[in-house]
Amino acid sequence: MSNSISRRSGGRTARKTARAAPLAEHLRPVKAGMVGGSYSPLSPQGEKKIHNAALEALEFIGLADAPQSGIDSMLDAGAVLDDNGRLRFPRSLVEDALASANRNVTLFGRDQKHDLDLSGNRVHFGTAGAAVHIVDVLNNEYRDSKVKDLFDAACIVNELDNIHFLQRPMVCRDIVDNREMDYNTVYACCAGTTKHVGTSFTEPSFVPDVIEMLHTIAGGEKAWRERPFVSNSNCFVVPPMKFATESCQVMEACIQAGMPILLLSAGQAGATAPAPIAGAIVQAVAECLAGLVYVHSVKPGHPCIFGTWPFVSDLRTGAMSGGSGEQALLTAGCAQMHRFYDLPGGAAAGIADAKMPDMQAGWEQAMSNVMAGLTGLNMVYEAAGMHASLLGFCLESLILGDDLLGQAMRCVRGIEVTEDNVSLDVIKSTCLDGPGHFLGSEQTLSLMQTEYIYPSLADRTSPKEWVEIGKPNLVQKAIEKKENILKNAAKKIDPVIDDKLRSMFNIHLT
Amino acid sequence: MSNSISRRSGGRTARKTARAAPLAEHLRPVKAGMVGGSYSPLSPQGEKKIHNAALEALEFIGLADAPQSGIDSMLDAGAVLDDNGRLRFPRSLVEDALASANRNVTLFGRDQKHDLDLSGNRVHFGTAGAAVHIVDVLNNEYRDSKVKDLFDAACIVNELDNIHFLQRPMVCRDIVDNREMDYNTVYACCAGTTKHVGTSFTEPSFVPDVIEMLHTIAGGEKAWRERPFVSNSNCFVVPPMKFATESCQVMEACIQAGMPILLLSAGQAGATAPAPIAGAIVQAVAECLAGLVYVHSVKPGHPCIFGTWPFVSDLRTGAMSGGSGEQALLTAGCAQMHRFYDLPGGAAAGIADAKMPDMQAGWEQAMSNVMAGLTGLNMVYEAAGMHASLLGFCLESLILGDDLLGQAMRCVRGIEVTEDNVSLDVIKSTCLDGPGHFLGSEQTLSLMQTEYIYPSLADRTSPKEWVEIGKPNLVQKAIEKKENILKNAAKKIDPVIDDKLRSMFNIHLT
Repeated sequence: MSNSISRRSGGRTARKTARAAPLAEHLRPVKAGMVGGSYSPLSPQGEKKIHNAALEALEFIGLADAPQSGIDSMLDAGAVLDDNGRLRFPRSLVEDALASANRNVTLFGRDQKHDLDLSGNRVHFGTAGAAVHIVDVLNNEYRDSKVKDLFDAACIVNELDNIHFLQRPMVCRDIVDNREMDYNTVYACCAGTTKHVGTSFTEPSFVPDVIEMLHTIAGGEKAWRERPFVSNSNCFVVPPMKFATESCQVMEACIQAGMPILLLSAGQAGATAPAPIAGAIVQAVAECLAGLVYVHSVKPGHPCIFGTWPFVSDLRTGAMSGGSGEQALLTAGCAQMHRFYDLPGGAAAGIADAKMPDMQAGWEQAMSNVMAGLTGLNMVYEAAGMHASLLGFCLESLILGDDLLGQAMRCVRGIEVTEDNVSLDVIKSTCLDGPGHFLGSEQTLSLMQTEYIYPSLADRTSPKEWVEIGKPNLVQKAIEKKENILKNAAKKIDPVIDDKLRSMFNIHLT
Repeated sequence: MSNSISRRSGGRTARKTARAAPLAEHLRPVKAGMVGGSYSPLSPQGEKKIHNAALEALEFIGLADAPQSGIDSMLDAGAVLDDNGRLRFPRSLVEDALASANRNVTLFGRDQKHDLDLSGNRVHFGTAGAAVHIVDVLNNEYRDSKVKDLFDAACIVNELDNIHFLQRPMVCRDIVDNREMDYNTVYACCAGTTKHVGTSFTEPSFVPDVIEMLHTIAGGEKAWRERPFVSNSNCFVVPPMKFATESCQVMEACIQAGMPILLLSAGQAGATAPAPIAGAIVQAVAECLAGLVYVHSVKPGHPCIFGTWPFVSDLRTGAMSGGSGEQALLTAGCAQMHRFYDLPGGAAAGIADAKMPDMQAGWEQAMSNVMAGLTGLNMVYEAAGMHASLLGFCLESLILGDDLLGQAMRCVRGIEVTEDNVSLDVIKSTCLDGPGHFLGSEQTLSLMQTEYIYPSLADRTSPKEWVEIGKPNLVQKAIEKKENILKNAAKKIDPVIDDKLRSMFNIHLT
């Protein structure tokens, strides 16, 4: 319990030598895709109850407002159109879609080392959202988010080990034309990072521009289709239980263009979804199962992500509370349903209600992220940088989130119990023959970097050291790291291709 | 995903009416003793491996340095003294102690409503530690902790719903005489709160004073023995695998006096315990099993808490890192071993390495606390207020921790899946006959206060509202709440008894 152990000299030199050596990539204690699944917020009976209720909802309530193209393909597949124009889904139709679903989805990065394997309970953390503000921590203010902010976010994501993908986290409010906004969003993301990018479209007719841009960046349609590095975050439903007609048309266009689909059902418990957590999960699952049937009816096996993203209302006001414990449970419960179906899945965690990167933000982001990871959620969206219940994105918080998520990922990695690491022999020799402590033991040295993760900005000094180094301020350190990253950030689009893009499109980013 | 839902009027008046009514105690969404257990960091094989390794360690390594009294009683019980003076524990002896252990331990509050039932996977959060500093957030400073700080902490704990007990979190450094310090510690705690109190003793000979004080507060020895409201936090081992001779004598004295024992094994992975998480758990389990045998050999069935408290070193420096992910896993793994044995257990979570209540503190405290809770840890010690890896205690952080722990406890409560709350009928009527949203539904209203928990200080306003209310600062709000609590705090010791205590003891608190 005493920190005085730090002043003992045993093994200190050896440790210093060991930590001076750079750590090979394969030895890193955490990386993208660590396997979760040790936390199960639902009992096996609970899973089945939710599954059955979702199937009943699809069979007896169904979904309204599908576009005619979707109605046609889903009727072909075996759906039924009822007298009220709602598409109903017989149990067997859903079961068939589940049986034949694509379970080996990889979301590609432009750089292969950033590929994300969404099989099993592999966990990946990244950004997402549609914040309309950027958080200015220096001035304690919210201002409109711009395309330059999005580019900066992309550059920062590119440098952070524990942020594995960049789904567009904020809206470029300085671009008033929606068509231009859509392709400039993709441009800004790809210019900033070679990690996988997620994006949305305002209208179906805006899809072709972006696809043309992506073909150009990829070096042709074939190269794009082989490794599509952008996915479509698609709010295909308007909960409760209605298709979002235009978004469905966007989805169809993206499927044809070879773009993976995030089937995003974003109900709000107590508002557009039932207030009980279980009920909100049922509805989200039902809606995403409808989406799965939809995608399969258009193109069997097309890669899609089961995006049950129910949110939580503060029921006193009806306002969203993404930072709540109820939200953490909702997301973890959804993640467990993805495991139940063995489907590549995604949901939202890491949202702060806090306006600034303060203690509240820390606990809100940590609780939901670690619970999502422990459940084995494949894609943890909105995992970093998100404030004010999705209304503000904060670059400094994104940077601090990298430390937070590294720690969460260490928890996801879990406790390995092997003959070696139960350490009976080490305890024996230490107690009976050895120095009576483990500081300099070979085992300690060998695990120092491979089993323990060290934060980049979080402070672990003693109070005395903390005074000596001038009482570093966490947010100030994040500001400095941000400035350093942005100062050194190189555009991730080849200049020749960049010129070509600028001749084809009205690129706002200078 | 939009916050505009908050501006809809459906159900708003009804919600306002409902939230104006006070919430009956039995309806509160979370309370002490919610049942965890949905998170299992260890596989069933892992549990068994750890158990077996611990038994082997006890049989073949044993523990040195027991006091003669302990040697006598443990030899009587079936332990073996080897040639090196180490007490070895045959497997059958440990298994017998496990079989006959007291599994129905209640830690009493002076007020019955604060009793803590440690059976099963019931979770309780509270303070603990031996910080030598109090954190002065206003001046960004650490200063020596004093008895008045301890009393203030006790008064604050008394008012916080989600802090269920007060184990002494800091040392009264203004009391230089250790005998006086020990009884003044108990006095300050009991003067501040009627919740259960935990304390330590510097020497065995200081126990009788405190017992006399407790008899006086209780109204006699009989009343004390019926509901002992103070437990002894006892570091009975010096890891690795040595009894702490004097602490063991303290323990024997406390057992005789009817005081429950927290059997606290506080190794430090990589220093005084093996570096692998599994190995540190093995050693902690072995040491606490030895403690269990010890207690039973002195007084069979005496209430004790299986206190596997291994800590984590930052292996680069050897310094403690209580805020790390490795620490969160270590504690959760220990909690699972308590479940494995079905023993009342306790461990440390919620420690921040951060020096101030900043974002780092938030994520560090949240991750380990929620993981401990989800594993079903009975007693989560050091859950709030602890900074600088146990060197500093912060009253403002304690207050903010109440919000954090309320949220963690909501997660522990988990997701109930019943016929009613899968909500099929509600979805159906809402979609097919109803308003198309759930804002004013009877279900939503009835769950508003019983299934959702609302923070006391954490901010959920929109950016617009946040500006309107003057951009409240979280730490500033905690300072104000602290001042308000302390201004109104009444001493929890009857004036007549207080006079008596002051005539018997040198009470430092004025």
